[in-house]
Amino acid sequence: MAGVRDRTIGVLGGTGPQGKGLALRWAQAGLKVVIGSRSAERAQEAAAEIAESVGGDITGQDNAGCAADADIVLAAIPWDGHQDTLLSLKNELAGKIVVDCVNPLGFDKKGPHALTVPEGSAAQQAESLLPESRVTAAFHHVSAVTLADTSVTHVDLDVLVLGDDREATDVIRELADVIPGVRGIYGGRLRNAHQVEALTANVIAINRRYKAHAGLRITDV
Amino acid sequence: MAGVRDRTIGVLGGTGPQGKGLALRWAQAGLKVVIGSRSAERAQEAAAEIAESVGGDITGQDNAGCAADADIVLAAIPWDGHQDTLLSLKNELAGKIVVDCVNPLGFDKKGPHALTVPEGSAAQQAESLLPESRVTAAFHHVSAVTLADTSVTHVDLDVLVLGDDREATDVIRELADVIPGVRGIYGGRLRNAHQVEALTANVIAINRRYKAHAGLRITDV
Repeated sequence: MAGVRDRTIGVLGGTGPQGKGLALRWAQAGLKVVIGSRSAERAQEAAAEIAESVGGDITGQDNAGCAADADIVLAAIPWDGHQDTLLSLKNELAGKIVVDCVNPLGFDKKGPHALTVPEGSAAQQAESLLPESRVTAAFHHVSAVTLADTSVTHVDLDVLVLGDDREATDVIRELADVIPGVRGIYGGRLRNAHQVEALTANVIAINRRYKAHAGLRITDV
Repeated sequence: MAGVRDRTIGVLGGTGPQGKGLALRWAQAGLKVVIGSRSAERAQEAAAEIAESVGGDITGQDNAGCAADADIVLAAIPWDGHQDTLLSLKNELAGKIVVDCVNPLGFDKKGPHALTVPEGSAAQQAESLLPESRVTAAFHHVSAVTLADTSVTHVDLDVLVLGDDREATDVIRELADVIPGVRGIYGGRLRNAHQVEALTANVIAINRRYKAHAGLRITDV
């Protein structure tokens, strides 16, 4: 299988902070990126903003156009619209590697907490909605603030990459590795995605307590 | 509240690898430690073995004696006996800080996976069983192999400490900090313990893939 440098990376929800931050880092690393959004116009604006900031080959389309044009597609969409958006893109995403980075979280006066997902996790919901795609899960704990800050040239983070398709998780690990400082680490099968998504609630609690933009590193690897 | 150096640390299930490894490190750091086990004799044997290896003030008792004598009690018991053991020690544990480090996991031919716990997590089960104790959760991802290896003088690990009682989580963070290399980091409320326990399945998957004894570090804190 060809490496990520020969592929087009689509970012569904690429006008949101997490998607936009990753799109920026991938464009900066020289990958071909297509931002997707419900509004093609807003996607084009975000792409133009990134191109102006870091250069690179980055364009914008509506989500369906993004999914159709890309070889590898990151779903960086809100949990609220996760099911409907993916279902509507089933045909465009067939045969492609899909990376789910969605964290189903709720917030109340006690802070963040994980939501219960009938399928077990957002990633498993994606897998059930997209039986013809190669679904992986990764990029859950990236700090959007850090990604957007181009003065941060080394992003201190290990990205856990989950999935049952070895070749697909290897490609997504490579997609993590292209961001300076970031390492993609295999993190287990998709059935163990829930806790990785839910851990974002703990990361947010850490950020609040320590006024940090916390990330994870895996030691001894 | 007095620091951990003035307290007696009890380790329920202290003859198992995780409990024994932590008991060793705490005894080595100069804390007063009581190992608990179903069998007082096996607890005394484990304590004598640790004392011979690293010295320190460490003794053994049955679990009830351990819980009664200690000020801070680590529950390092198998998930299978979690409910019954804690229920039987309810009186001995009243008024004390209890640290739950239990990971409810299952294993099948696809590897490790998180079990569903009716209360949400082992820690929340402990909280519901021990209403008069101050329940926290921590030390989920420690490598028993690394702890037992006294040639490892710096344990490369951040310990996430969860709980709703700020003073109790501060004490347990200090209990982590006494092990050279280890940092105790506040990791959120007890309702967010499930994903920290379950993440041990991912850590095991990482260990298998990379032939490592993986741990976590939190960046930017």
